[in-house]
Amino acid sequence: MKKILAVFITALLLSACGKNEPPLPKDASAAETPAKVYNWKMVTTWPPNFPIFQTGVEQFAKDIKTMSNGRLNIKVYAGGELVPPLQTFDAVSSGTVQMGHGGAYYWAGKIPAAQFFTSVPFGMNAQGMNSWMYYGGGLDLWRETYAPHGLVPFPMGNTGVQMGGWFNKKINTVDDLKGLKMRLPGLGGKVLAKAGGNPVLMAGGEIYTALERGVIDATEWVGPFHDERLGLYRAAKYYYYPGWHEPGSVMELIVNKKAWDSLPNDLKMIVEKAADSTNVRMLAEFEAKNLDALEDLKAKGVEVLKFPTAVTDELKKLAQTVFEEEAAKDPGFNKVYGAFKAFQEKNTQWNAISESAYAEVLKK
Amino acid sequence: MKKILAVFITALLLSACGKNEPPLPKDASAAETPAKVYNWKMVTTWPPNFPIFQTGVEQFAKDIKTMSNGRLNIKVYAGGELVPPLQTFDAVSSGTVQMGHGGAYYWAGKIPAAQFFTSVPFGMNAQGMNSWMYYGGGLDLWRETYAPHGLVPFPMGNTGVQMGGWFNKKINTVDDLKGLKMRLPGLGGKVLAKAGGNPVLMAGGEIYTALERGVIDATEWVGPFHDERLGLYRAAKYYYYPGWHEPGSVMELIVNKKAWDSLPNDLKMIVEKAADSTNVRMLAEFEAKNLDALEDLKAKGVEVLKFPTAVTDELKKLAQTVFEEEAAKDPGFNKVYGAFKAFQEKNTQWNAISESAYAEVLKK
Repeated sequence: MKKILAVFITALLLSACGKNEPPLPKDASAAETPAKVYNWKMVTTWPPNFPIFQTGVEQFAKDIKTMSNGRLNIKVYAGGELVPPLQTFDAVSSGTVQMGHGGAYYWAGKIPAAQFFTSVPFGMNAQGMNSWMYYGGGLDLWRETYAPHGLVPFPMGNTGVQMGGWFNKKINTVDDLKGLKMRLPGLGGKVLAKAGGNPVLMAGGEIYTALERGVIDATEWVGPFHDERLGLYRAAKYYYYPGWHEPGSVMELIVNKKAWDSLPNDLKMIVEKAADSTNVRMLAEFEAKNLDALEDLKAKGVEVLKFPTAVTDELKKLAQTVFEEEAAKDPGFNKVYGAFKAFQEKNTQWNAISESAYAEVLKK
Repeated sequence: MKKILAVFITALLLSACGKNEPPLPKDASAAETPAKVYNWKMVTTWPPNFPIFQTGVEQFAKDIKTMSNGRLNIKVYAGGELVPPLQTFDAVSSGTVQMGHGGAYYWAGKIPAAQFFTSVPFGMNAQGMNSWMYYGGGLDLWRETYAPHGLVPFPMGNTGVQMGGWFNKKINTVDDLKGLKMRLPGLGGKVLAKAGGNPVLMAGGEIYTALERGVIDATEWVGPFHDERLGLYRAAKYYYYPGWHEPGSVMELIVNKKAWDSLPNDLKMIVEKAADSTNVRMLAEFEAKNLDALEDLKAKGVEVLKFPTAVTDELKKLAQTVFEEEAAKDPGFNKVYGAFKAFQEKNTQWNAISESAYAEVLKK
């Protein structure tokens, strides 16, 4: 009897427990089974605590944790904490970590076309880049370009128009660039070389000392806020604008394709929207901090000067030559260059009668 | 005995059922209890299917449904479908619906200061507005301004610099504005009145016929894309730029405060990030569609003209007078005007050496 009763009770328990469960709301499938928790790692190309760049990425991870109710936990490592900064691409591509943040142009050695997804000399500003990315086919091209590397890219931040750099002599003509040793990486450096200058590659941490000791004659960095923090105003007299070499640098989020595919739709959308949010807020933060830093730098006696039109006109022509040469060498570069150029031509026309025309009205 | 057994079995059932539950993952609190589903209503000031504006809001609701896994369902009603467009503010404030989308300047009659949170004549462009909102104290001021109305606002979209409008005569001097009947609402209309013009209020649907029949002499609307759809090029010869009256109109999301407070933190963050995403993508969509529409309009023979500098200079002076008059009448307007102006002054200086200087380089 005891045995029979036990069996009966067990059977009753099994059936009743199911029936006693509270009804599940429709569409709330997350509640049906215990939610799977994803513990991800993310590496960046930025130094620890690097303001706006690294802090923006950390906020992104925090926001995703909140939005996902702890179901997607992203541990963020600054450059060098887990892998060296410039191994971010490989670490995400190989699946060592699931996510990375940096600039696509860092991978120009592997993928020359990647440069168009950050910024190119005389390219588009932040607003133009966003239009091209989201509604002009740019993001599709970027995904296509990264697909063979098992990566899914997203725009996630923008520096806005950068500054032209710090110089210890005035740049009155293109001839003043001849022989100039300037820290200027990437395509900008190639344009400088065409003008007779000597572009130098150098990590951020070395720039100040190199400039101060005359190892280099000039340098670009980011904009007033970051340049002031690096103390560049103590090592150079003249601060030139505009940053023709990086007029609207897009920061990238890269996600390992297999990791991405493993996410349920809600977490995918959460990542995408968090990246969009960082995209708009990072630019806003750059702008807000740059305008205060610009005032500071002026108060410190920095001479803020515009590159003469003859100089930027000449550099623009040389940039075309560089683009044509790169396009001839690499079909991927050529393809993206064509799409970028076509969009930019229309964008420049529209900008001329909207943003640019309006800015002229304000300046008067 | 049967009774005792029944009581025993019931007690066993109650305790055993609890123990038999599968272990819950840490941090996955959403899975602990069946998730509460929020079925919300959202009204907008836009016509049904109005591209970018209304379609962008519908995408926002769809994205939130995906991100929340169906826990926050927002049913979107276009203007007039549930309440008339201009009752959006009241409907959300009173809690009739939980959310609304429109432009803060529509509520200028109730809250004169609200205009600064959309756009004001000779105010900031989209990038400046985002900087001010997110990192310059603008959003805090906006929230403070809306708090007495039980509303929490968020920036959610931007038109970019609008066009100056459609005219049937050339505007060579400010005198050409005298007696001009122009559809131009809000502060822009007040500036026009100071210049001797007659600003007219008129809903979008009436503009084309009014212009075509000569009931009005001129009109502004949005930008190339929306203006082309309205067929305004068939009713006026000259298309002037830039839109000094609306240089970067922020679209607003408003959420009823009690409804907002009822949301758990994950859904709050989901709403905020979805609004940020719409903010950046809506502007990108405007830009991408405007540049194509501009080409179309030019191909249709529209004459695209710049307001002479003397005209915009004079209008800018008159705008200052309007601001001072409004500030004297309303302390709330005065407060926000002061904060806006201080930020804009720095922003204009920074813009002059970044975006604006760079645009000049590109135009050459």
